Amino acid sequence: MQSDIDPFRAIEISRLAHSLKAEGRSIIHMEFGQPSTGAPQAAIKVAHEVLDSDGLGYWESPELKQRLARHYLDTYGVNVEPEQFILTCGASPALVLALISSFSPGQRVALARPGYVAYRNSLKALHLQPVEIPCDAAMRFQLTAESLAALDPAPDGVIIASPANPTGTILPADELAAIAEVCRARGIRIISDEIYHGLSYVGPAHSMLEFAPEALVVNSFSKYFSMVGWRLGWLLVPKHHVHRARAFVGNLFLTAPSLSQHAGVAALDSHDELQGHVAVYTRNRELLLAALPAMGLTTIAPPDGAFYVYASIIHLTDDSLEFCKRLLLETGVATAPGVDFDPDEGRHFIRFSFAVSTPEIEEAIRRLTAYFTSINTGLA
Amino acid sequence: MQSDIDPFRAIEISRLAHSLKAEGRSIIHMEFGQPSTGAPQAAIKVAHEVLDSDGLGYWESPELKQRLARHYLDTYGVNVEPEQFILTCGASPALVLALISSFSPGQRVALARPGYVAYRNSLKALHLQPVEIPCDAAMRFQLTAESLAALDPAPDGVIIASPANPTGTILPADELAAIAEVCRARGIRIISDEIYHGLSYVGPAHSMLEFAPEALVVNSFSKYFSMVGWRLGWLLVPKHHVHRARAFVGNLFLTAPSLSQHAGVAALDSHDELQGHVAVYTRNRELLLAALPAMGLTTIAPPDGAFYVYASIIHLTDDSLEFCKRLLLETGVATAPGVDFDPDEGRHFIRFSFAVSTPEIEEAIRRLTAYFTSINTGLA
Repeated sequence: MQSDIDPFRAIEISRLAHSLKAEGRSIIHMEFGQPSTGAPQAAIKVAHEVLDSDGLGYWESPELKQRLARHYLDTYGVNVEPEQFILTCGASPALVLALISSFSPGQRVALARPGYVAYRNSLKALHLQPVEIPCDAAMRFQLTAESLAALDPAPDGVIIASPANPTGTILPADELAAIAEVCRARGIRIISDEIYHGLSYVGPAHSMLEFAPEALVVNSFSKYFSMVGWRLGWLLVPKHHVHRARAFVGNLFLTAPSLSQHAGVAALDSHDELQGHVAVYTRNRELLLAALPAMGLTTIAPPDGAFYVYASIIHLTDDSLEFCKRLLLETGVATAPGVDFDPDEGRHFIRFSFAVSTPEIEEAIRRLTAYFTSINTGLA
Repeated sequence: MQSDIDPFRAIEISRLAHSLKAEGRSIIHMEFGQPSTGAPQAAIKVAHEVLDSDGLGYWESPELKQRLARHYLDTYGVNVEPEQFILTCGASPALVLALISSFSPGQRVALARPGYVAYRNSLKALHLQPVEIPCDAAMRFQLTAESLAALDPAPDGVIIASPANPTGTILPADELAAIAEVCRARGIRIISDEIYHGLSYVGPAHSMLEFAPEALVVNSFSKYFSMVGWRLGWLLVPKHHVHRARAFVGNLFLTAPSLSQHAGVAALDSHDELQGHVAVYTRNRELLLAALPAMGLTTIAPPDGAFYVYASIIHLTDDSLEFCKRLLLETGVATAPGVDFDPDEGRHFIRFSFAVSTPEIEEAIRRLTAYFTSINTGLA
C-alpha cells in the first residue's frame, strides 16, 4: 500500500493570508513557526565573505562540528565527538535520517498527540506505524514515562519533543530521566527533537542526551538561531551509529548548504543578538497570556518554551480549520488550526505563533480581543 | 529487516587525498563529480543583494518555478506548468521524493548497472527492490527498451540516467522514445535523472519528458550550473502527482535554501558564462581521450556527456579500490573506483572526472601517463 499523508492545513491559511495581503489587507502572520527576524549579523557578514572567496562545493565543515560539540558541552555538560554530528538541510531531513536509519517498515514508534504533524506523516511515509499517545491538558500535552511504560507491546521507538510543537510545553529533568529509564528497560529507541531549545521561559530545557546517551537528537538553526531559509540542521547520533548514519546521508541527501555551514559557526557565537530575540518573544508571550482571558481563551497549554500558544476553542467551534479561515478573513490575523497537530481533538484547538515583532503582537491582540469579544457576546 | 547500504568508496579516496595534501603533496581531484568552478557571477551578485535585504524564511520562489518552466520550453519544447516543479535541497532528496511518493515497499525498480551508487542504495533504504540490468560496453553501459521489455515480470518502475554516471553515455532520442513506449505498454513508472543535462559533447541530450509526459524528472543546479554546495534541485512531476508530491515534501523536507532559489534564477540567465565551463570540459575531454591509448586504457564507455570517463583496468587489477588508492599514493591523482558504480564488474573499472581546470587535466595526464607506462611495462 502506498502511504497517504496529509498536507499542512496552515499552508492553506497562509495562502489565503498572502492573497488577502495582495488585495491590500493588513495581515499579521502567526500561522507558521518561524522567526520574523533574520540571521545574526555575524552570520550574514561571514556569508558575504565566503560568497566571494569559496567555490562552495560538496562540504562538511569540520569547524562547525567542533563548535557544535562545544555547544553541547557548554549548554548541557554533555561530551560528544564532532564526528557524531551529521549535518543536514534542516531538521526535517535529520528526522527522516533518524527514522530511516533506525527502524524498518512495520515497526512501531510512539509519539504524543497533539504533536508536530510531520512526525506522524513522516512515519507513515516511511511505512512505520505511529503509536499515538493521547495527551490532554492534565498531562500538559506531553507523553510521560508512565504512558510509555503502559504501552503493550513496547514500541520500537519514541519521538520526544521538548519544548513541544504546538504547545510549547517542556518536559522537566525528572520526567526525561524517567522516560530514559523506561526506554532503556524496554528497549525503546529514542528520537529527541530539540529544535526549540534556546527558546524557553521557565529555565533552560534539558537535552535527552543528559539522560539517554543512546538517543538520536534532531536540531537545527531554524528557530533559536533564526536561520530558517538557510536550511541547516543536524542529527546527533551515538558513536556506534555514525557509520550507518553517514552511509544513509551520503546516499539519500549528500551535504548541507556550504554557505550556511560557514554562517552557522558565526551564529553559534552570536549569543547577545539571539538573546535579544528571546527577550522579544518573552515580552510577546507575556502580552498574549495577559490578553487571552479577555478573549475567553482560558484553556491553554502552559507555553514553557518555543513560541506558541495552543488554546482550546471548543466553546466556539468543532471545525478549527474553518474557524481559522473566518478569523483570518475578519481580522487579518493568520493562525494554525489544531487539526494540523491532532486529527482527533485538534478540531477544538488553535495555535498562535508569537514569533513576530512586539508591535505586531500588540496589534494582533487588539484585533483578536475585539473579534473574540464579539463572537463570545454573540454566543451569550 | 533493516536495510544495509554501502558507503561511497570515493569518499575514502577523497579523505586520503586530503590527508596527503595536508602533508604537502600536490593533489589533483578527479574523484568526485563536481565542477571546480563556482556559481555564475550573476548568481553570486544576487546572493549578496538578497543577504542584505531578505529575512530568508521558509520560501518557494514563484519566479524560479516560472523560469524553470520557460527553461523546459526553450530547451526541450515541452510545456509544463510552474506548479509542477517541487524545489528540493539538491537532486538527492528529489530522487528520494520521486521514489517515496511513487512506490511501496517491496516494489521493483529497474536500473542500469553500472550506475550511480545512490540509486541502488536509496532504493534499498526505502525498502524497494533494485532490479539491476547488467549493461556492458556493447550496450554502451545503458539499459535499452529491449532489456526493459525482456524483464519478467515487468518492474514497477525504472530509473533512466542520460547522460549517465559513471559513463557519460547518452541515450539517443529514438531509444528514449522506445523506452517510453515499453514503459507505457507495461505500466512502468519512469524516474528520469537528468542532472547532467547541458553537459553533452555529441549534440544536446533529450529530456524523457519529450517522449513520456508521465515521467518524473530529477535535476539540479549542481552540475551544468556549477552550484554544488548551494543545494538546489527540483523534481518535475505530472500534474496529477503535484498534490501528493507537495504533501510528501512538506512533511519530509520542507523548503529549499531561500538564497539559492534567488541565485538560481540568475544562474538560469547565465548562459554565456556557463557555456565557458562547457568549453573547458570539451577541451579536457579531448585531451584525456587523446592520452588514454598511450596509458593502455583502450576500453572505455563513449563519454557523450557529463564529465566522466569510465575505463576498464581489467588488465591491471581485480580490485579497483586498491588500485585507486595506489594510484593516488603514487601520482597524487584522485579517482573513483568502479566498485562504487557496479558491485560485480566495477572491480575492473576506474572513473576519471574531468571537471577540473585544463592545466590540472594536463598535469594529471602527465602523471597518469608516466604511471600507467611504468606498470604496463612492469606487466610486459
